[in-house]
Amino acid sequence: MGLFSKDIVTFDDLFLHQLQDVYYAEHQITKALPKMAAKATAPTLREGFETHLRETEGQIARLERVFGLLNEKPKAVTCPAIDGIIAEANEVAGEIADKAVLDAALIASAQAVEHYEIARYGTMVAWATQLGRSEIAAILQETLDEEYATDDKLTAMALSTVNGRADAVTA
Amino acid sequence: MGLFSKDIVTFDDLFLHQLQDVYYAEHQITKALPKMAAKATAPTLREGFETHLRETEGQIARLERVFGLLNEKPKAVTCPAIDGIIAEANEVAGEIADKAVLDAALIASAQAVEHYEIARYGTMVAWATQLGRSEIAAILQETLDEEYATDDKLTAMALSTVNGRADAVTA
Repeated sequence: MGLFSKDIVTFDDLFLHQLQDVYYAEHQITKALPKMAAKATAPTLREGFETHLRETEGQIARLERVFGLLNEKPKAVTCPAIDGIIAEANEVAGEIADKAVLDAALIASAQAVEHYEIARYGTMVAWATQLGRSEIAAILQETLDEEYATDDKLTAMALSTVNGRADAVTA
Repeated sequence: MGLFSKDIVTFDDLFLHQLQDVYYAEHQITKALPKMAAKATAPTLREGFETHLRETEGQIARLERVFGLLNEKPKAVTCPAIDGIIAEANEVAGEIADKAVLDAALIASAQAVEHYEIARYGTMVAWATQLGRSEIAAILQETLDEEYATDDKLTAMALSTVNGRADAVTA
């Protein structure tokens, strides 16, 4: 590469860059989830994080299949977005003493992570489809469906956590 | 506050912290959008960013109304998540020479921003509703609806951008 050359030239380059970015993000998420599970009070929330950790490992395996279909070796590029989302999750969690409030904050942080992934996988599915890579689109769609399902479960937990708390306060 | 005290004790504290976080995020977005508009090639994309800038200014005004309803002065707390999302957008855009590829990357970055906001406003609407603050929930729901609409428009633009490019390549 020349001194002033740009690393991303074609749509294929952009797609690969996005894939490497999400590969990095998923690995950071596998490191964050056990810590979130350890902090969670409600058993359903803790189990939810543990289930999602196993799902995330499957999502990493899918990304590796996609790298293979592109004849590329799996590689991660630093993703400041997920680093920021996880840093913020840790900061907020570190400031909370009350267990129920902490659970609510953990759920909110997990939903920020899910939405980041929904945005990225949504983009990649659209690009893969339009670029005629239907097999890749189908693999990434499986993960996108899982992320939406996880987000829905988190929303249900958020409502029951705050409800439980509000009942306790007004009882 | 004592040396080892925690800043977030109640759900009200957590809600206020989230509000301050999003207030910071919206201000960062108003700084990022003109730069994204300047980089965009497709007129519809440039206009889309300009429209969303005006919407974002209205969203900041709504947040200030919510601060008022809570008898709090508007205040921003640094939000590493949005900082990371915007840093990543700038990094990727800086690496792309081709105009159509750059547009696709800008759209993807904007969708990551939208999904961050969807996650945060979704959480705040749920919390406000459950905590019996229906007026606040209604104000924030207006913004949430705008974010979803913007995300849908970006998805449509993403598909037409990549389609246009694919046609050009195969023509």
